[in-house]
Amino acid sequence: MENSKLKAFIPLFYLAWSDDLLTQKEFVTLQEFIRSQQWISRKEQEYLLSKVTVSAPPSRIELAEWKFEIDTAIDQNPLLKSIFDVSMVLAEKNSVIKDLATDFMKLENDLGILGEEAVSNLKKTAKTVTSNYHTSNTFDIEKLTQILDGKQAAIIKKVKTVISRPDFAYETSTDIAVYREKVYDWCTILAKENLGNMAYPKQYGGGENSADYFAIMETLSYHDLSLVIKFGVQFGLWGMSIQSLGTEKHYSKYLKDIGSFQLPGCFAMTETNHGSNVKGLETTATYNHDNQTFIIHTPHEKAQKEYIGNAAVHGQMATVFAKLIIDEMDYGVNAFIVPIRDTNSTILKGITISDCGHKMGLNGVDNGTIRFENVVIPKENMLDRFASVNDEGKFESPIPSDNRRFFTMLGTLVGGRIGIPRSALAAAKSGLTIAIQYSDSRRQFGPEGGSEVPILNYRIHQRRLLPLLAKTYAIHFALQYVTNRYLERTETEMPEIEALAAGIKAYSTWSTTAVLQECREACGGKGYLSENRIDALKNDTEIYTTFEGDNTVLMQLVAKNRLSEFRKTFGEMDAMGIINYVFETAKTAIAKKNPIITRKTDEDHLLEDAFHLDAFQYREKTILASAAKRLKKLIDGGLEPYDAFNVVQHHMIDVAQAYLERIVLEQFQKAVQAIEDQKNKEIVTKLCRLYALSQMEKNKGWYLEDGYMEGIKTKAIRKMVNQLCWEIRPDAVSLVKAFDIPDSCLAAPIAF
Amino acid sequence: MENSKLKAFIPLFYLAWSDDLLTQKEFVTLQEFIRSQQWISRKEQEYLLSKVTVSAPPSRIELAEWKFEIDTAIDQNPLLKSIFDVSMVLAEKNSVIKDLATDFMKLENDLGILGEEAVSNLKKTAKTVTSNYHTSNTFDIEKLTQILDGKQAAIIKKVKTVISRPDFAYETSTDIAVYREKVYDWCTILAKENLGNMAYPKQYGGGENSADYFAIMETLSYHDLSLVIKFGVQFGLWGMSIQSLGTEKHYSKYLKDIGSFQLPGCFAMTETNHGSNVKGLETTATYNHDNQTFIIHTPHEKAQKEYIGNAAVHGQMATVFAKLIIDEMDYGVNAFIVPIRDTNSTILKGITISDCGHKMGLNGVDNGTIRFENVVIPKENMLDRFASVNDEGKFESPIPSDNRRFFTMLGTLVGGRIGIPRSALAAAKSGLTIAIQYSDSRRQFGPEGGSEVPILNYRIHQRRLLPLLAKTYAIHFALQYVTNRYLERTETEMPEIEALAAGIKAYSTWSTTAVLQECREACGGKGYLSENRIDALKNDTEIYTTFEGDNTVLMQLVAKNRLSEFRKTFGEMDAMGIINYVFETAKTAIAKKNPIITRKTDEDHLLEDAFHLDAFQYREKTILASAAKRLKKLIDGGLEPYDAFNVVQHHMIDVAQAYLERIVLEQFQKAVQAIEDQKNKEIVTKLCRLYALSQMEKNKGWYLEDGYMEGIKTKAIRKMVNQLCWEIRPDAVSLVKAFDIPDSCLAAPIAF
Repeated sequence: MENSKLKAFIPLFYLAWSDDLLTQKEFVTLQEFIRSQQWISRKEQEYLLSKVTVSAPPSRIELAEWKFEIDTAIDQNPLLKSIFDVSMVLAEKNSVIKDLATDFMKLENDLGILGEEAVSNLKKTAKTVTSNYHTSNTFDIEKLTQILDGKQAAIIKKVKTVISRPDFAYETSTDIAVYREKVYDWCTILAKENLGNMAYPKQYGGGENSADYFAIMETLSYHDLSLVIKFGVQFGLWGMSIQSLGTEKHYSKYLKDIGSFQLPGCFAMTETNHGSNVKGLETTATYNHDNQTFIIHTPHEKAQKEYIGNAAVHGQMATVFAKLIIDEMDYGVNAFIVPIRDTNSTILKGITISDCGHKMGLNGVDNGTIRFENVVIPKENMLDRFASVNDEGKFESPIPSDNRRFFTMLGTLVGGRIGIPRSALAAAKSGLTIAIQYSDSRRQFGPEGGSEVPILNYRIHQRRLLPLLAKTYAIHFALQYVTNRYLERTETEMPEIEALAAGIKAYSTWSTTAVLQECREACGGKGYLSENRIDALKNDTEIYTTFEGDNTVLMQLVAKNRLSEFRKTFGEMDAMGIINYVFETAKTAIAKKNPIITRKTDEDHLLEDAFHLDAFQYREKTILASAAKRLKKLIDGGLEPYDAFNVVQHHMIDVAQAYLERIVLEQFQKAVQAIEDQKNKEIVTKLCRLYALSQMEKNKGWYLEDGYMEGIKTKAIRKMVNQLCWEIRPDAVSLVKAFDIPDSCLAAPIAF
Repeated sequence: MENSKLKAFIPLFYLAWSDDLLTQKEFVTLQEFIRSQQWISRKEQEYLLSKVTVSAPPSRIELAEWKFEIDTAIDQNPLLKSIFDVSMVLAEKNSVIKDLATDFMKLENDLGILGEEAVSNLKKTAKTVTSNYHTSNTFDIEKLTQILDGKQAAIIKKVKTVISRPDFAYETSTDIAVYREKVYDWCTILAKENLGNMAYPKQYGGGENSADYFAIMETLSYHDLSLVIKFGVQFGLWGMSIQSLGTEKHYSKYLKDIGSFQLPGCFAMTETNHGSNVKGLETTATYNHDNQTFIIHTPHEKAQKEYIGNAAVHGQMATVFAKLIIDEMDYGVNAFIVPIRDTNSTILKGITISDCGHKMGLNGVDNGTIRFENVVIPKENMLDRFASVNDEGKFESPIPSDNRRFFTMLGTLVGGRIGIPRSALAAAKSGLTIAIQYSDSRRQFGPEGGSEVPILNYRIHQRRLLPLLAKTYAIHFALQYVTNRYLERTETEMPEIEALAAGIKAYSTWSTTAVLQECREACGGKGYLSENRIDALKNDTEIYTTFEGDNTVLMQLVAKNRLSEFRKTFGEMDAMGIINYVFETAKTAIAKKNPIITRKTDEDHLLEDAFHLDAFQYREKTILASAAKRLKKLIDGGLEPYDAFNVVQHHMIDVAQAYLERIVLEQFQKAVQAIEDQKNKEIVTKLCRLYALSQMEKNKGWYLEDGYMEGIKTKAIRKMVNQLCWEIRPDAVSLVKAFDIPDSCLAAPIAF
């Protein structure tokens, strides 16, 4: 191209042949443009057209030459702002071309390459904000670990030491028999370390320390989760059923051997036909006056005990929940100790055990089904704290209602609903540690001419992981709170604590499922390899949303508890008087603030603790009141309450969700306020804000629908979530390091 | 209780001792009430107080007697509307009690038991709307199957026949070596049935029928997914790389043996350090002029090929993507056939293969890593459709830009991005069939005194599964459309079709992940047992969101394509003129409709096709325009385009999402319109409406923020989603039966 005027076409030609986004249609556009230019001679026109003929591409060398000319022009004139600017430089500011500015710009417009972005793509921009960003550390990691561990630091350290020992190397065999024996051996070691009996009374060899027991469950969960569940079945479910439902005679006879793992046992509640609705259990325990025994019996196949941990291989005894029958009269579900194997592991007469077989996860736990055919047990085997059969063969109980007695018994077992979400929390921490550390080192793509960028620098990647990191911190503090409430419980508080435990169990385990899903995807192909452990974490915790109470059912229970509290506080009056009052008052309170609050978007306001808590509380109250109102209306309209509750089930989930989110935020804020170290406080404050704002963003549909916020505010919140993610990113690696998970437990090669 | 006045207290006593929701605090409330009543004698007061003393509960028999009196009262007076009404009946309408109505109502209010619900809970209501609901069938299932299968019915039937044969019984061994051999054997059988080579040219033994090939991939996916992926690696990736990137000499030499599975091979693109950013592959193919060969080499460990299917055990050759180097000059990534094993399965010299080991799923596929140490291959092994080295040792290509050439090569492989989402669709159909059929038979809870209810009658359960069923039908039709577009593609349409395929791949595979997660939870403990196959479906498809392109990366590509199209249509003008114009015009158009449309909530409108499509189109256009505007603003503000794109990544996902949702809805509506049979049309219409409205509900935050809808309308939409779920429920089982999945493939015991 000798003629410098014609050089104006070089950038267009280059883009036509190299840009991914220009297609055959654009070649036609270019050809038409060339033909329409009167200032070009016939020969020049032919020449130019030859450069945009699809069937006759330029050589690779010619393309390289064009690129060289463009690069030179840009290097020498770094302020060029459009493709036309480049054309002008190449055409040596030829006045003919200059006069054609509008034509060229229109052409570029038609090709979709007008504007600074198109020319920027031709520049080499090795250094960008995105590529310069990296991990730094603004706080003392160890101090944060201390805050997280709190008073349980010593036992947490002890557990970490034990599970980091060489005999705790992960089992990689896919043979479940091998895996189960390994988990059994691990449990034996933990029992020897006096970790299993930590919550039992001192007189039976225990540590009498439930706070430490929960910390043990959580810390063990950095290691194999089959181990945690087997440990929980043995020392938690089996042992605690004796401690909570039995009396002195049972303690002295069993607790020591259970705590030492000499007596492996099961917790046999669930039946094939009754999982969530355990009130409907069908196994029977029939009292025999003649010899003062109970006959334990499975009336039909679907009444067999199912999914029972420790049943398939190791269990020697089981706490069996069965309907007590005396003289053909049904006294509701009670608990009985039933031997199922002798010490040689031979299954006893009348007992039929099947293996549940391979499961999605937790294959180190030997789940089985148990059937009883008229199995006779002595009278003393009834766990008789809440009900008993007296010497005259009469039923006795301080709780006359069968229903209430059963739920009281279940209430004593609520500790399991704290152990499980704490285990789930640890699994989420492991997943996030692996994914965030990998994302900090994994590089992919980058600016033109620059090196590749850590994927954690990408906003979408931050969006995927960092709000979940904040939520995991939030749940950590919420679980500390729920644990303390449980440990310091009084009788009067029990309904509230049961609802809290049920709710936080659902909230934490669902969160873990979501966290690990995101971690798997965020780690790409590496996240799919079993060696990186997201596989095990994900599949093992998958059932956490089901066992110890199906989450959806638990959320309905939580909501019913909230409704009941609401009614006690406000009653119903007639014609919905009070409900309407509460409802409308709340509305009015907000309306008054309009538009100051609903449209307020300054940074100080958006980051304010009080704003966050207000928004969560408002949502909680309003959803609860509207659910109560809706139910009342449906029932007044003639619907059976059973049907009415069915209609509002979806609403009830929101009631429970809003309640839990408020609790979690409240506890997170309190925990932040208690931090003394300034640097620690700053970073955890950011996490707390990110938690609050990302939940509000998730619920923005509700806030907008309700009128509590306007669009301008929800948009500002979205922006603030992005900004907080970006601000937290340099500390993200330190924030997962503060979880202080032993390297040998983390194990995933991609995390190092 | 001789004194009939005092009997007024019976319902209160009964509730105090049996209701779960009354706590110790309420006992105090009751006691205080009793003490405050002047009309009660001292002795009566003592008597009444003795009945609400926590430490002295009534006997179980006394409680039963109270209940009997209450039951009798309710039976004889079915219209009682409150606890006080019951009290009045028991007190024989005593005038003293009658006068105390306000006091009693206040007490009941304080106890939270005022209102019809409390008394309804005491009634036996065996028959309710919820418990009477059940599966019925309003349409001809076989006809619907015909509509779904369309022109591919014959091949679908053939594949189903093959995979239902006894030799396709599922492998249950957890030994991956055993599993891999089984999958290998299955592939051999499928090859013999001429299913593998279906898309190859007839002259090389193929069926020359790509439409059938895709149907085969989808139908096979009702069976083991390791089989599908191994099948896809062999006949799709390996075979199609030859067919798409090679020339005649390669076809005649390899295609027949590949199609017959005589020549198992690999598709070796991904490297450890380059998965998404394949442009950065580092393996080299250096041309040696002396003997006209290429030297294939892995420069460092992280440049090894990774996750390569067929590599660990069975592959004999591989299509290797490597940078072509001639005379120290880099000519970009090209493809080469490299032998890796001889026919005795011995690994060839210079090749190092490692096993990727155990994975989260797809363990029947032998993924491995491959390293090359100066492996020499003849010149003819270069797949030379798009580039070659001529006799003089010079590079030749009709596509001068290395970048564009590579993406053109990748474009020819886009078929994989159709096979995978269709396989994902089949997996979702399997999961839904298992979960819905189980939910129809599984009973849990029920009205007081009635039998338990199928869990699919619960609104929350319908909410969990039925919108996903609708979405799965929607994706079915969308994938038919994308497949047809691909099969009938012209050169000009390629960028659009590539974006469509990338987008639907992400949309379908993410949907499958969500569907199977919900199915697992919906099936509770049973869903966790491997025998019910949700385990395998879930874990096998987990990687679908990553391979054939990471979904998040693909969505960014789709969005970039949309932006490019947008610019070509509207350009940028200066000062954002046109963007603002488009943006504001759309806004104005809506504003004009206010409040007719934004507040319109009548049923006819909410169910209207035109309303649905308008809403989806509006969202698509508005998000796209606002993303373009935001990008322009950021770049004009001085940000590097690379950084600007990073800032809007989250927005870009929405751009792609909104585009895909519009396509999916549009195709679903067209498919519905084409149905002739009236009954079929009715039920599929409901699914289409449920899809549309449940997506709008999901996006309600956006619609409200934007002003397209007001709260009154989004609430009406939520209600309509609930209603459609309820209306579809009786047909839900028939709708999954219409997928016509062979029983032997479904296999899950809970599904039958």
